[in-house]
Amino acid sequence: MSAPIRPARGMRDFLPHDVRRRDYVIRVVEDVYRRYGFQPLETPALENIETLTGKYGEEGNKLIFKVLRRGEGETSGETDLALRYDLTVPLARVVAEHRGALPKFFKRYQIQPVWRADRPARGRFREFYQCDVDAIGSASMVVEAELCAAVADVLQRLGFRDFVIRVNHRLVLAGLLDHAGVPPALHGAALVALDKLDKVGPDGVGNELQARGIDRPAVEALLPLFAGRMELGELGRLLATRPEAAAAVAGLEKLFALSGSTSAGPYLRFDASLARGLSYYTGAIMEIAVPDLAGSLGGGGRYDGLIGMFLGQDIPACGFSLGLERILVVMTERGMFPADVDTGGADVLVTQFDDGESAEEALGLARDLREAGVRVDVYPEPDKLGKQFKYAAAAGVRHVAIMGGDERARGVVTVKDMTSGQQRAVPRAGIGQWFSAGAAHQELAPSGSEDQE
Amino acid sequence: MSAPIRPARGMRDFLPHDVRRRDYVIRVVEDVYRRYGFQPLETPALENIETLTGKYGEEGNKLIFKVLRRGEGETSGETDLALRYDLTVPLARVVAEHRGALPKFFKRYQIQPVWRADRPARGRFREFYQCDVDAIGSASMVVEAELCAAVADVLQRLGFRDFVIRVNHRLVLAGLLDHAGVPPALHGAALVALDKLDKVGPDGVGNELQARGIDRPAVEALLPLFAGRMELGELGRLLATRPEAAAAVAGLEKLFALSGSTSAGPYLRFDASLARGLSYYTGAIMEIAVPDLAGSLGGGGRYDGLIGMFLGQDIPACGFSLGLERILVVMTERGMFPADVDTGGADVLVTQFDDGESAEEALGLARDLREAGVRVDVYPEPDKLGKQFKYAAAAGVRHVAIMGGDERARGVVTVKDMTSGQQRAVPRAGIGQWFSAGAAHQELAPSGSEDQE
Repeated sequence: MSAPIRPARGMRDFLPHDVRRRDYVIRVVEDVYRRYGFQPLETPALENIETLTGKYGEEGNKLIFKVLRRGEGETSGETDLALRYDLTVPLARVVAEHRGALPKFFKRYQIQPVWRADRPARGRFREFYQCDVDAIGSASMVVEAELCAAVADVLQRLGFRDFVIRVNHRLVLAGLLDHAGVPPALHGAALVALDKLDKVGPDGVGNELQARGIDRPAVEALLPLFAGRMELGELGRLLATRPEAAAAVAGLEKLFALSGSTSAGPYLRFDASLARGLSYYTGAIMEIAVPDLAGSLGGGGRYDGLIGMFLGQDIPACGFSLGLERILVVMTERGMFPADVDTGGADVLVTQFDDGESAEEALGLARDLREAGVRVDVYPEPDKLGKQFKYAAAAGVRHVAIMGGDERARGVVTVKDMTSGQQRAVPRAGIGQWFSAGAAHQELAPSGSEDQE
Repeated sequence: MSAPIRPARGMRDFLPHDVRRRDYVIRVVEDVYRRYGFQPLETPALENIETLTGKYGEEGNKLIFKVLRRGEGETSGETDLALRYDLTVPLARVVAEHRGALPKFFKRYQIQPVWRADRPARGRFREFYQCDVDAIGSASMVVEAELCAAVADVLQRLGFRDFVIRVNHRLVLAGLLDHAGVPPALHGAALVALDKLDKVGPDGVGNELQARGIDRPAVEALLPLFAGRMELGELGRLLATRPEAAAAVAGLEKLFALSGSTSAGPYLRFDASLARGLSYYTGAIMEIAVPDLAGSLGGGGRYDGLIGMFLGQDIPACGFSLGLERILVVMTERGMFPADVDTGGADVLVTQFDDGESAEEALGLARDLREAGVRVDVYPEPDKLGKQFKYAAAAGVRHVAIMGGDERARGVVTVKDMTSGQQRAVPRAGIGQWFSAGAAHQELAPSGSEDQE
């Protein structure tokens, strides 16, 4: 063996069975996003390096895959391109570039892979798909409410009932950090530490906060604020004297009121300890949790300053990203896929007797069946009929069409149902119509059963 | 402006209008490929560098994008990963890895982007989609016939009538090179030169052949063989004493006979000058031409040795790749897209009067409409009604739903058709049903016209 046959570390091949399941989820996501008035957008996998750097915070920057500059870079090691790290920064770039041509409120969805040089783990890969929805141009909390409703609809359509959309606000967090005495310059560092609360617990966060230069009194004042699942009303009273934080609390109250009229209502929960890792969020932040997964199924938030990093002028924006791989992991473990997702191969196998005239007849038969909308596989070479049956059975092809010398002389095709074993001679001339009308399933069904497939 | 707002060189953003057109073509391709019994496969964008190197020939190797190794590679310039250059080599790797689990004849389709550090030109980009079909496991010419039929079906379904599938065979080319006295060791170099015949003409190819070390008598014997559009029969006589080449001619005759029974028949044309650039082809080669495009819409061929480079044991294989970008370029220039491809935004805009109770009502109305399958955009903030109408018109949203204080008191929604200007009060309770039954189009159509949309 001269070349490696495994995919690269943290990357995966998707065989037909996998692709069908992925496509099923993507179709549901697309359908719901379109119903919410979002429009499709796609951006290149590669971006200029400067487009990505400085947007994701210290942890993110380290995980960007960098591409060697062609030509001279081959020897100097110089890089000029980088692989897309998320779908939000490319969106901000596109909005800045096409500002004049886009509608005042631009609502887009985007379902594409992103790449992160992360340590692979369960449900965490180096190439993974994100399913993003973002609404650009409005600071109204109606935007957050619509985004939460859209992802709640997606998850319900996929069969999820036990998810929670945790909600917080970056200005609420800033208010709590101020309240505990964390200096503004260390807020970013504090959020990076706080984001690990689920993973490392309060003690771990406390240690990391101190390691990041936040003094012990501030840490001791801060941690209890996240211990007891504070209610929004209680938080409002605590932060009443801090205008920005108080306004953020009011905004979240508004989001909960609006969500009473949407499908997200029963799933929203305020959680003061939610921090989110990315540095570009400026307002509401959201994250989806399910009981049997340590990580989240998706997350998002408001990022009113990001487009300004490209345009030189801020434009309000808010988005939500669903993680396709995480959703697939949970759906697979729970057996949530409809049965017909896993059957998607050919309907009929056309057999072959010799590679002369019979091969031409076989291809003509396949042509007529395909024109009638039937999915047809052709056994590519002459072989024993038993072997061809065996191939059909192994490939999950239900019907086999046989056109030997006898059939050709009589102007018929023998059609055999591989599950019932029944067979029948069908006139060659009308075979496309016979199949597309469902006759194969009605006339060759297992005896005693009513096959309504 | 602190960050570049343009995509990287040779890469493109696809706005909603572009994505809808791309998706339309992809859906047709998928539907046809599935009818031919092909199954979906997806592979990672990044491969280990050794997986790709040495597979594409000298020209190809130079165009592979290489990715810096994470960690130590950041400073040393070491690379370990590379971006997918085509979909065929990853397929060969997957077949080698999963040989035991795949059916005896594995027929897969794959529609994904590939990356090449090529000089950008019209219809040539550094990121572009390929739509591949490949059949693994049989050396029968039925495979080539089925592949040609599948791509011919795709192009016909898209509306193409003037394409030609040029066909040749690598062993025919080898026979002609032998016949002209080109030494076997220089065959590969000769094919690279010959592949440029369309671009640089016979004189250019002659110069390049000599520059690659082929002597003048051989060049002068070779070039006339490609000048006069030799027929297959004539070629058979010329190569009759060379067994491999004669068998290749017989194989192509077989392909033409089989294709008489398929949709590819009228489009196939033998062309002894077709060479194809990639080094992994071993048998029949194909390429699709249309009159108004210098490059090809797609190409393919048999590559019976490639899987062996991974598996250590050869497995016959043959494939065809359609270039999505080229197809889109020609379809756009010729205006070949159905009108409904370009209309795909929201059906209804729900307006907004204030951000209190009315916002909750608006979201509830949107929820009910979406549950009925209607695509709904919600104007995100209170604004003058005229501005909201203007937004709907600009976004191409046909109907606007208004629920002001008056409507709320009466339990109705005013629905306005933005094209006819007509409006009507519809009971709030049954509005989802009213829309999904098509009443908006029937009752509010422009007067005097019959709107059957």
